[in-house]
Amino acid sequence: MTDAVPVVLGAAMARIGPEIDAIFDTLLAVPEDDGRARLFEAMRHAAIGGGKRMRPLLVCAACDLYGVARDGALRVGAAIEAIHVYSLIHDDLPCMDDDDMRRGKPTVHKAFDEATAVLAGDSLHALAFELLADPDTHADPFVRAELTLELARASGPSGMAGGQMMDLEAERVPLTELATVTRLQQLKTGALIGFCLEAGGIMGRVPPEGRKHLRGYARDIGLAFQIADDLLDHEGDEATAGKALRKDEAAGKATFVSLMGAEAARRQASLLVEQAVAHLRGFGTEADLLRAIAAYVVERDR
Amino acid sequence: MTDAVPVVLGAAMARIGPEIDAIFDTLLAVPEDDGRARLFEAMRHAAIGGGKRMRPLLVCAACDLYGVARDGALRVGAAIEAIHVYSLIHDDLPCMDDDDMRRGKPTVHKAFDEATAVLAGDSLHALAFELLADPDTHADPFVRAELTLELARASGPSGMAGGQMMDLEAERVPLTELATVTRLQQLKTGALIGFCLEAGGIMGRVPPEGRKHLRGYARDIGLAFQIADDLLDHEGDEATAGKALRKDEAAGKATFVSLMGAEAARRQASLLVEQAVAHLRGFGTEADLLRAIAAYVVERDR
Repeated sequence: MTDAVPVVLGAAMARIGPEIDAIFDTLLAVPEDDGRARLFEAMRHAAIGGGKRMRPLLVCAACDLYGVARDGALRVGAAIEAIHVYSLIHDDLPCMDDDDMRRGKPTVHKAFDEATAVLAGDSLHALAFELLADPDTHADPFVRAELTLELARASGPSGMAGGQMMDLEAERVPLTELATVTRLQQLKTGALIGFCLEAGGIMGRVPPEGRKHLRGYARDIGLAFQIADDLLDHEGDEATAGKALRKDEAAGKATFVSLMGAEAARRQASLLVEQAVAHLRGFGTEADLLRAIAAYVVERDR
Repeated sequence: MTDAVPVVLGAAMARIGPEIDAIFDTLLAVPEDDGRARLFEAMRHAAIGGGKRMRPLLVCAACDLYGVARDGALRVGAAIEAIHVYSLIHDDLPCMDDDDMRRGKPTVHKAFDEATAVLAGDSLHALAFELLADPDTHADPFVRAELTLELARASGPSGMAGGQMMDLEAERVPLTELATVTRLQQLKTGALIGFCLEAGGIMGRVPPEGRKHLRGYARDIGLAFQIADDLLDHEGDEATAGKALRKDEAAGKATFVSLMGAEAARRQASLLVEQAVAHLRGFGTEADLLRAIAAYVVERDR
């Protein structure tokens, strides 16, 4: 984290990691009585003690806008993090990106084995929906059903998984259009970020037509986040990132940086952050965390 | 299907296949405009036109007990089938069971590739929850949230995925106790069958304490189904089954047949079917389909 990160964000980031870890620690207590211990250990390896927890932070920040109770916000945050982590586990598999390190630790198929990694990902996937549909997350079943529907859409073939497929296809037929790379990223990473913001509105019982600013903010920071990721991949340090870098470049894959150049990409990311913050103009200090996150997205070093 | 299958079941089985196919055909329309076509084609390959559709049939039969509208029952049936199909796709992967054929067709990683198979499984997994949480499935959000919670539990680390892990571990340390094999199967296949029956009660707004007979029936036919599967694996014909057989035997894995012997296993399966039918004694003709399914479970030849 750089010195430029405002105090409000530093405190929020320091707080959310242990909160999310505590939820996973409880949900993923290792069963001692049968052959499932290895599965739970693999899930814990991937889900506990790593990552920036950007998605749970976004959920909590969006919930702040509407005074939603933090317990419920954190459970929704853990659900989206479970989806994110499952996608990382599967994405790291030898048949996908074939990565050995993730969040500074061996990937699940390296620390355990491939079959366990497939099942640990599938299990975290199911756990996400178990969290959302549980009455402890929100007393109103309408809210629980709406959260479930939105997360299923954001993570499925018309969201994250669809974007991952486009990404795989781009290895066969390299992309050359900025519009196509943008569409890919809006599915692959943008859809889940959209869910994080929308979840705040759903938990706060804001009707869909009142959530336009949330979707606008999410679209802008989602794209800024990905451009910043491409810049970090291009210029960053592997030790700080905790994962292998410059794999896209080596594979000849189109990124925002390869298509626009680093300088134009940096300007575009800054412009998107300004746009994102503009969507929050109707809010006061309750939106300060979202404003700080928008700035952080392009200033971070990992 | 043998001659012993009653007319009621034959008609129900002939009807449900096309109904489930039609739902998947609509949901999985192949997008023409981006790189996701291959993902949808892989999902269609796995989900459309194959299998006995036992799980959707069970959902519909359980819904018959309470006069639940067929449209909603079929959507829940498609959701559970999507979970079943995703688990088959992942289970067939080289790092898991490494199977080339499924339902008489090449497995997804053979017809496409491993990465596409991982994503097609993940996408069907998400689709299941999208189906359950959609207002078209049931007007009452409480019903949708309860279906979501039950399916997530039945398919996750304390259900199907947990059973698959126990199954993998049994390859390292062979199981010797019938109780452990029973526990494994209750998680691996029993939990989802339990969901099928429970879903009928949930859709029919039967409170949890009024669903004991459904859970009892499901537990008994689930176990009978697995014992029959082990017998088919031991004695069946690969062409009829549409998949490789006797892999467990070759790997030295314990099954009900290897632990009990074929004759005792056959008697046990029959006894479980009698028990299952006894749970339905409070019902009239509306339970005839469930009674016929119970008998079929041990009489089928694939």
